[in-house]
Amino acid sequence: MPATITAFARSPDRGRGLARDMRVRWALEEVGQPYEVRLVSFSEMKEPAHRALHPFGQIPTYEEGDLALFESGAIVLHIAQRHAGLLPDDANARARAVAWMFAALNTVEPPILENRFAWMLERDQPWYAQRQQVLDDRVRVRLAELSGRLGDAQWLDGAFSAGDLLMVTVLRRLGAWPVLDEYPNLCAYVARAEERPAYKRAFDDQLAVFTTSAPDTLTGKGLEKNGDSSDV
Amino acid sequence: MPATITAFARSPDRGRGLARDMRVRWALEEVGQPYEVRLVSFSEMKEPAHRALHPFGQIPTYEEGDLALFESGAIVLHIAQRHAGLLPDDANARARAVAWMFAALNTVEPPILENRFAWMLERDQPWYAQRQQVLDDRVRVRLAELSGRLGDAQWLDGAFSAGDLLMVTVLRRLGAWPVLDEYPNLCAYVARAEERPAYKRAFDDQLAVFTTSAPDTLTGKGLEKNGDSSDV
Repeated sequence: MPATITAFARSPDRGRGLARDMRVRWALEEVGQPYEVRLVSFSEMKEPAHRALHPFGQIPTYEEGDLALFESGAIVLHIAQRHAGLLPDDANARARAVAWMFAALNTVEPPILENRFAWMLERDQPWYAQRQQVLDDRVRVRLAELSGRLGDAQWLDGAFSAGDLLMVTVLRRLGAWPVLDEYPNLCAYVARAEERPAYKRAFDDQLAVFTTSAPDTLTGKGLEKNGDSSDV
Repeated sequence: MPATITAFARSPDRGRGLARDMRVRWALEEVGQPYEVRLVSFSEMKEPAHRALHPFGQIPTYEEGDLALFESGAIVLHIAQRHAGLLPDDANARARAVAWMFAALNTVEPPILENRFAWMLERDQPWYAQRQQVLDDRVRVRLAELSGRLGDAQWLDGAFSAGDLLMVTVLRRLGAWPVLDEYPNLCAYVARAEERPAYKRAFDDQLAVFTTSAPDTLTGKGLEKNGDSSDV
């Protein structure tokens, strides 16, 4: 029986692949595993039934037989450990790929999300310009370091891995802010990942949820409607 | 040959166990593995020799034979996978413990760090009071959810695991802010972890680095001296 994941019934990113179910969809496509999707509304996410699966009332979750998991990073790692295609066979290379997974989520993502949340929630505040300069610099420090490490390589450490998968989804959170253009090798890195057939299938499937199940939100304000940073 | 980790030559937390090497020391103590420590200064952390180990110029790193790792979460997971004591044997329980590791670092830690950084860096700004209320609420949401899930249990999911280890280090980042007092079961959870012999050994060892190698910084301002959030 295929695994079941949860995703936003109406994604605040309007189907642009920024919601965290995208990571799990992409991972499952990379390893060739079918899956089912259960859509949940924002109010359902905060109800006891969903919180039994996810203590913090978010998406995605992952159910497979008796196993229920939350946290996109943990779900991607579980998939990568169970199926070939997202982690190298060599034990040391495997540990390094996992290090890149944590680096994506714990070192690169936080300053990016803080930056984008400030834009979403504080850009009309009198202090925005002054704070945003600091937040912009924090992102640029991380991007410069990442760019320096990647250099001319295709992927972060040898073959494409779950570390690249998470890092690309984190870089895509920069959204419409064109800061990535300052780092041509990072732009090419993201574009290279987006060309992968598994990425395209995952992207199209999550976009289809948005275009078919919630057409009226096409006229909404998208991300700006959702104040809770962590839910996107 | 024992593994070698890196730690701050002069920790900005003044030996209170908040720097990320504490996670790795604690994990190694839990599984009974010896290790060596190489101290690095803030300037050494940003030099090429250290960046070869850690692309983002931080501590801790972990070297063991041919393997070099960075990211405290990845290092703790590597230790937990190689040695008994930090992950359950049952495959599903193991995956859930890993989910708590990611939850600690990716869902609970970011709002806590943003809150503390705002206190460190912006508390003299005219906008501080207004922003801080929002940041405080973000932390309380996560703590309430965590408290609700923990309930009367000793640990997050069965026996003590690497998930608890990381979660406790994240909660300790709240530092002098007494918000944890609002959640008695979380206070007891942290206190329970701090009573573990492995925790005490790790704490004493990292404190000894501070008290013996950098006595002059005892009169410093501690955390406030370090503007770069991510380095602590």
